Amino acid sequence: MKNEIMTASDLYDLVIIGGGPGGFTAGIYAKRAVLKAVLIEKGPVGGQMALTEVVENWPGTERIAGMELAENFLTHAQTYGLEVLSREVTAVEPGLEYHTVRLDDDRIIRTHAVIIATGGSPRKLNVPGEQEYYGKGVSYCAVCDGFFFRDKTVVVVGGGDSATEESLYLAKLANKVYLVHRRDTLRAGMILQERIREQKKIELILNTVVKSIEADSQGVNAVVLEDTQTGAQRTLPTDGVFVFIGFTPNNRVLSASLPIRVVSGVI
Amino acid sequence: MKNEIMTASDLYDLVIIGGGPGGFTAGIYAKRAVLKAVLIEKGPVGGQMALTEVVENWPGTERIAGMELAENFLTHAQTYGLEVLSREVTAVEPGLEYHTVRLDDDRIIRTHAVIIATGGSPRKLNVPGEQEYYGKGVSYCAVCDGFFFRDKTVVVVGGGDSATEESLYLAKLANKVYLVHRRDTLRAGMILQERIREQKKIELILNTVVKSIEADSQGVNAVVLEDTQTGAQRTLPTDGVFVFIGFTPNNRVLSASLPIRVVSGVI
Repeated sequence: MKNEIMTASDLYDLVIIGGGPGGFTAGIYAKRAVLKAVLIEKGPVGGQMALTEVVENWPGTERIAGMELAENFLTHAQTYGLEVLSREVTAVEPGLEYHTVRLDDDRIIRTHAVIIATGGSPRKLNVPGEQEYYGKGVSYCAVCDGFFFRDKTVVVVGGGDSATEESLYLAKLANKVYLVHRRDTLRAGMILQERIREQKKIELILNTVVKSIEADSQGVNAVVLEDTQTGAQRTLPTDGVFVFIGFTPNNRVLSASLPIRVVSGVI
Repeated sequence: MKNEIMTASDLYDLVIIGGGPGGFTAGIYAKRAVLKAVLIEKGPVGGQMALTEVVENWPGTERIAGMELAENFLTHAQTYGLEVLSREVTAVEPGLEYHTVRLDDDRIIRTHAVIIATGGSPRKLNVPGEQEYYGKGVSYCAVCDGFFFRDKTVVVVGGGDSATEESLYLAKLANKVYLVHRRDTLRAGMILQERIREQKKIELILNTVVKSIEADSQGVNAVVLEDTQTGAQRTLPTDGVFVFIGFTPNNRVLSASLPIRVVSGVI
């Protein structure tokens, strides 16, 4: 019952869900505007950034560890007294007077406004090596990580528009791009398929799935492929693996009927 | 006639007009995608940022000189070999095969794409002290600079929606906000005017213009005001002056009929 008692001072101006670059930027600006604001992050501070070994595309910073950049965001926000909670949000319930944010420890926070900066989750292959070598050759973002593979060999997994578009992007950087797809044709739009055929650096490997990702101390060095028709396995040397088999926005906390304004970006 | 001769290699993938944070970020990403790209800036590298003494709202960096942050952007972009031209663009002429960008030295650049990151220009008061003390107490952006005036006194100049909105923003930070307007009523919407009346920290000074901005070694310390009806002058002590009397996007290089996609942001 205690949760139902509230004084005016319990009411927040702003709850920010998600502690990646977007969430922390919102937090820094909110506190500079002297709002009563709290940021809630369920995982490590920095979000996906914190799991990234090296970040080279934060403008003005040639090279920084993802963890270090994440800590810089946290320190900057805390300079202004941003509250940071290490919890998971279980629901956001919109209201007329205030919105209610529910946490996994059964606490509730009432607020005038909510910023959802929860990012998204790429669908995983769920094969051995994928999680271990994330940021060490395994990537889900060509714009973020493509440049690391300049003049190298990469494997792209997928057959839809994303996989083909990202293959074309990577082909401008890499020496060789293997596009591995489990079916006998790509699902991508015909104009993309045409461009794939015209781009000599891209080699299509159909009816094939990735069984595992191999690495040495330098990072990824090969994938094990399996022919879906014959079951034959082979090892294909590669410097990197880009997985584009789907992407889900992390919006589970929102009710489907909630009107939201979406602003998108990528680091 | 030489300008009319072109080989395929003369054609750029991308021309970026404007060397502020937006332009350089575009440049860094373009070069990481191995595009043939050039950035053109008519003034100092960094744009308005370069004229800003201290930047506190670049996420992850608590405090940095505007010039230093600008140089960080330049260095980062040049790591990837971004061409940077110190010239003014006089025209952008869209075409079907390519677009033509004309420079003030009569050179022309042909390109597949153009990013206009030229920002905007706040309208100036054009009074003594305004230009000299920009970044030392004179500001055109409350979100950027308001926090410097926490618990201090500021003068806001203007009478429209911007001036009243920014006054309300600043009233959350400052101890005292004088809103100085040359006419006998505000032009702002009635709901904003109502909020101004409700906010006790804001004092409206009507029929009044700023004649000059005074400063000592610590920055701005006063404004000289003149009553437009009596001509009487007085000195009002203040720590800062925020000018919101109009804002013009720097889009002169574009023909009015050009279809463009606008993405907006502020540092």
